[in-house]
Amino acid sequence: MRRIDLNSDMGESYGPWKMGDDAGLMEVITSANIACGGHASDPETMFTTLTMAREKGVVIGAHPGYPDREGFGRRIIPMSMAEIERMVAAQIGALMGVAALAGAKVRYVKAHGALGNFAADDRGVADAVARATKAVDPSLALLAISGTEIEPAGRDAGLTVVSEIFADRAYLANGRLMPRSRPGSVLHDPQAIAKRMVEVVQTGLMPSEGGPIPLAAQSICVHGDTPGAVESARRVRAALEQAGVTLAPFVS
Amino acid sequence: MRRIDLNSDMGESYGPWKMGDDAGLMEVITSANIACGGHASDPETMFTTLTMAREKGVVIGAHPGYPDREGFGRRIIPMSMAEIERMVAAQIGALMGVAALAGAKVRYVKAHGALGNFAADDRGVADAVARATKAVDPSLALLAISGTEIEPAGRDAGLTVVSEIFADRAYLANGRLMPRSRPGSVLHDPQAIAKRMVEVVQTGLMPSEGGPIPLAAQSICVHGDTPGAVESARRVRAALEQAGVTLAPFVS
Amino acid sequence: MRRIDLNSDMGESYGPWKMGDDAGLMEVITSANIACGGHASDPETMFTTLTMAREKGVVIGAHPGYPDREGFGRRIIPMSMAEIERMVAAQIGALMGVAALAGAKVRYVKAHGALGNFAADDRGVADAVARATKAVDPSLALLAISGTEIEPAGRDAGLTVVSEIFADRAYLANGRLMPRSRPGSVLHDPQAIAKRMVEVVQTGLMPSEGGPIPLAAQSICVHGDTPGAVESARRVRAALEQAGVTLAPFVS
Amino acid sequence: MRRIDLNSDMGESYGPWKMGDDAGLMEVITSANIACGGHASDPETMFTTLTMAREKGVVIGAHPGYPDREGFGRRIIPMSMAEIERMVAAQIGALMGVAALAGAKVRYVKAHGALGNFAADDRGVADAVARATKAVDPSLALLAISGTEIEPAGRDAGLTVVSEIFADRAYLANGRLMPRSRPGSVLHDPQAIAKRMVEVVQTGLMPSEGGPIPLAAQSICVHGDTPGAVESARRVRAALEQAGVTLAPFVS
Repeated sequence: MRRIDLNSDMGESYGPWKMGDDAGLMEVITSANIACGGHASDPETMFTTLTMAREKGVVIGAHPGYPDREGFGRRIIPMSMAEIERMVAAQIGALMGVAALAGAKVRYVKAHGALGNFAADDRGVADAVARATKAVDPSLALLAISGTEIEPAGRDAGLTVVSEIFADRAYLANGRLMPRSRPGSVLHDPQAIAKRMVEVVQTGLMPSEGGPIPLAAQSICVHGDTPGAVESARRVRAALEQAGVTLAPFVS
Repeated sequence: MRRIDLNSDMGESYGPWKMGDDAGLMEVITSANIACGGHASDPETMFTTLTMAREKGVVIGAHPGYPDREGFGRRIIPMSMAEIERMVAAQIGALMGVAALAGAKVRYVKAHGALGNFAADDRGVADAVARATKAVDPSLALLAISGTEIEPAGRDAGLTVVSEIFADRAYLANGRLMPRSRPGSVLHDPQAIAKRMVEVVQTGLMPSEGGPIPLAAQSICVHGDTPGAVESARRVRAALEQAGVTLAPFVS
Repeated sequence: MRRIDLNSDMGESYGPWKMGDDAGLMEVITSANIACGGHASDPETMFTTLTMAREKGVVIGAHPGYPDREGFGRRIIPMSMAEIERMVAAQIGALMGVAALAGAKVRYVKAHGALGNFAADDRGVADAVARATKAVDPSLALLAISGTEIEPAGRDAGLTVVSEIFADRAYLANGRLMPRSRPGSVLHDPQAIAKRMVEVVQTGLMPSEGGPIPLAAQSICVHGDTPGAVESARRVRAALEQAGVTLAPFVS
Repeated sequence: MRRIDLNSDMGESYGPWKMGDDAGLMEVITSANIACGGHASDPETMFTTLTMAREKGVVIGAHPGYPDREGFGRRIIPMSMAEIERMVAAQIGALMGVAALAGAKVRYVKAHGALGNFAADDRGVADAVARATKAVDPSLALLAISGTEIEPAGRDAGLTVVSEIFADRAYLANGRLMPRSRPGSVLHDPQAIAKRMVEVVQTGLMPSEGGPIPLAAQSICVHGDTPGAVESARRVRAALEQAGVTLAPFVS
């Protein structure tokens, strides 16, 4: 595996409020998970972000989340599986509508925040996300957290599934993310993060509490909403390129 | 002209709140203008309404409106032409996303309330609606208020334009609707309304203050959100059928 | 106990959408729990409902709920105790602001839907509601579901606590409501409901699965949002009056 | 006139989105116009801002705006005078509710953005704001744009009226703000701004196109949402103090 994708959450501003350095990150990543008006964004923000992605040649994904701006999609809103399915379909569709105006194309779907974490653990939620994705456009890929229920849900729905790992998170021996409540769960040293990612791509093994473990990784998720985030992402990219790894979107 | 469409606004409930007798109207109309989450609706309401329309063989249109639930899309929210364009594209897209889940297909677009009225008078707004429609899917028809700026805007965008008249509204000699502020502007007698519509379809002429005037009419708009509305719509339909007019959607 | 209050949820319309027969119920009840813009309502609806209550001499309570119109406050939105406290204070304050314009006065607080049910079971949530109420105005009473954590929370905060029972719900032997999932949990026969309420007021004992049990009851909650609701409430009131019970608000 | 107030808009974050350097500005100003959940803010943001103001001894004002987060209260939402009145009362009340929890007190009202500008020109809108303020608490002061309809509206309602000028705006000969569309309407040089404000306070005359004009000024409005804003505000304050002017809130 000498080729990898870098993805990041983008387009999470809302009305007058700005979030993250999208322009900076757009120079670093190869795939952009663009908010759809659920946990963040509005038609203007979608258009601006889609246009920026198109111009930079960054592949575009829909990033649906719970319709909860105040909680930024980080709270589980009690919804039935059917309600999740329809909500996700509406959000993907909204982004596609604006993408058509921006001359851009939505190529994949990645669930945001609490919706993504819930889907990771709960096959029912994962299936709802996969079904919505499939119904809207069966050629959409599903970007899944590696080692979670999202992967089989996507595969069983007949979708192309791409697995992502997180650049700045420690892993448990079973391949799941170490809970944020534990010390050391979030990595902060950009150099260590970059080195680690090079190893993962070169060996196919992710460092974990229980030693290196095999973990599917076609994409690395980097963050853009914290200070130094873009710089950290840049370092990961530079380290990978220096190690001879090709940075390229998982859809072409 | 011995064939006409009957359209009505549908799917304008929101969360726990119901609006109109959609199930009743769905038996009468041939085209349903379905709200897209802007002035009304939510993914659940969209799904229910789309499914009902599909099951009844009613043709589906997207009914975008100003994103203003409290004002039900009846207030002009100050927006630039570009903002209108992106907002309309997002709304059409959202409905299409849910329609994919419901096994339904969006075939046309009709602007709602204040957006429709503004577009009727202002070519810039009409162009914005037409551009959004065209971008999302150039095979979508544009349902325009007859005799307004929406018609040339749609035609110049290369869209199929369908003109609608209002069953229960009086007309001025210039073919525009009599303002609601004037007495007699809204017709209430179902029998008179039905008789009038038969005449329009048979003669191609609309009664106006200044006598019968030619007015393009491929569709008749009936309302469903007032008491007796469904009954009135039913009468219009029955009268047309009795007069030998075929009730059929304008897209097949 | 020969005197009782009748309360009902009111003012739950929103923008163009109407809910319940407020005008009808206002003739029957003695206390109105008025929505505050969280799970329902807007400043216009608040004003109309407050004015109606003032004119009818109905005592006014604030009815805060989770800020979730789409879910009508029936879903638990994950919030910290501090967040609940601030949200409840903001909602009570909003209603008070409009009440000042309407020449009306807010006299008590009752938590709505999922917030009320959560508070019933969880002392932390109940304390948050009580603290917010106390801070905004310590002379506000707290209308609590009888036999729940809301009662001690209110008393420990130094508030006047009033306990309510539900006219149309069956009770468990421990004084809690029978879950809606169980058959027979919701009573539908207006005559049986009325008879039952007369007994409760006359004996101080509530019929339950395990026989009559003592249950504090200074107020009876009746509903207004289902067909026949106002008629059922009227019957309860008439039966109580016929039995010589005085219908009067719990605050004077 | 050797004493003046410095006011600024505060608490305009929303959910996960931050706006402005409130902590920085709180060190400079004497009165804080705090958003009420209409154009910006939420109960958490209100609480944090109110607490900060209380701790810093900054006087607190309610800053109601059109209920339009996406437009940040900078768009005129079509509303009747009665609707404006109720909306303003609800917003002031909401802030008061949270203020009670924060141990803080709301002392004045200033209309935000498009609502303030509309009220400046339209006596009806100004009256609606004044009536709402008066009804909620007649001891609230009204912070008015100097030379506008807000001043007589407040006085006729029996409110204490305080007039504000803008530190960084050029004025017409009639005492009104030069429209932003004209070159030179917004001042950018912090030193020039500071010098100008010292002159106004010392002479009671405001520089205008037509030369110095008398203009009531009990408060100076400084901004906090642009780069360098806090620094500019700090300079104005330092220049005033150096000139022997006392910086103090207009309510004590």
